[in-house]
Amino acid sequence: MMENSNNSQHISHKFDQEMESLRNQVLKMGGLVEQQIAGAIESLQSVNAAGAEEIILRDHKVNALEVTIDESCTQILARRQPAASDLRMVVAVIKTITDLERIGDEAEKIAKMALNLAEDDAGFSSRYSGITHLGDHVRQMVHDVLDAYARQDVDAAIKVVRSDDKADEEYQNLMRLLITFMMEDPRRISEVLDVVWAARALERIGDHAKNIGEYVIYLVKGKDIRHLDLDEVEKDILS
Amino acid sequence: MMENSNNSQHISHKFDQEMESLRNQVLKMGGLVEQQIAGAIESLQSVNAAGAEEIILRDHKVNALEVTIDESCTQILARRQPAASDLRMVVAVIKTITDLERIGDEAEKIAKMALNLAEDDAGFSSRYSGITHLGDHVRQMVHDVLDAYARQDVDAAIKVVRSDDKADEEYQNLMRLLITFMMEDPRRISEVLDVVWAARALERIGDHAKNIGEYVIYLVKGKDIRHLDLDEVEKDILS
Repeated sequence: MMENSNNSQHISHKFDQEMESLRNQVLKMGGLVEQQIAGAIESLQSVNAAGAEEIILRDHKVNALEVTIDESCTQILARRQPAASDLRMVVAVIKTITDLERIGDEAEKIAKMALNLAEDDAGFSSRYSGITHLGDHVRQMVHDVLDAYARQDVDAAIKVVRSDDKADEEYQNLMRLLITFMMEDPRRISEVLDVVWAARALERIGDHAKNIGEYVIYLVKGKDIRHLDLDEVEKDILS
Repeated sequence: MMENSNNSQHISHKFDQEMESLRNQVLKMGGLVEQQIAGAIESLQSVNAAGAEEIILRDHKVNALEVTIDESCTQILARRQPAASDLRMVVAVIKTITDLERIGDEAEKIAKMALNLAEDDAGFSSRYSGITHLGDHVRQMVHDVLDAYARQDVDAAIKVVRSDDKADEEYQNLMRLLITFMMEDPRRISEVLDVVWAARALERIGDHAKNIGEYVIYLVKGKDIRHLDLDEVEKDILS
């Protein structure tokens, strides 16, 4: 009996270690993705071709992390057959890393737009500064949602989900402005469109951060809040 | 002993039924998503506001199916603790329905662009016909990848993954044309941009079909081919 109990304690300890390692891998992937966003925006603002190329090359590291973590999840499911909250954790990780990988793709797209601007010998006009604000906003969303994930903080996750509305609004305002620029100076349509694509990529990064926020809520509360009214969810969760 | 064996046969039969039902639910969701794409493109071509609104309203059905199937997956993981190929199947379903749901979102975006065109009293110029071709192409990709999923056909899945390059090329050509239109007639930039967004949505639908193709390969071969060179993968799989 004693031996059995030790043995099961040993297994449970190893399992805890595996779950902890899984969590750390996700945070590592998230940290890398945050760096990629910051670097991509920086390369766009400074129209820095060398910096942009670095970002593009580094995307494979994000992809490699996704594949590794995916394998860890499948192995844990197969060997540990986790239940209840551990199972929700693994399912949430499978979903989270898909969004992190796509955030990495969007950062890569922004870097490609920086390359385009550099090739066209176009500068980053101060008129595009709205994209810097949008960039700061969605980067903060990604940072906050990873923080909410690490601390399993539902309130912080709901905040991120809500703040996506503000990102969408900033994006809409920026788009209206960019359309005006195109109309004023049709010869620069191509150049402005590069900024349009970068803005679109940032808007999608906000969407992905929101998705991850919803997984955090599912993870902690066991409640799938996608496609539901947020006020109802909040009332329900807080009650 | 006899009773036990009957019992385990009974459980295994019920498990098979659950897996079969899961597969059918995914195909049902896929069929609905195909209809949404077709309806969205149709509403865009005919600038049909009523048709577009129907598509937008129907998106909640796609979302509801995602939540239902997600719950089925978590329940199967918790109660059945599937191993090997069954486990891969469940993980592939979790990923597939995320992409199907996002295809639904893109179809909704296309319908919104049709609404915009209708509100601006703009027609669907025959100059935009490239978007119809791109639409047919990506709708076929979604159809083929669901077929490959239903028949667990790796060759068909590889074909879909490969054909995404052609969709990207069609998209690039269309974009160049649309930029020319904007330069020629800056007063219509807003109108053309609606077509640009619809084209972008179609291009993303192609990406999602490609993702699902990769899950089919993972499902059948137990091999994660994302981010790998396709020639290598094909050689490896066929060998």
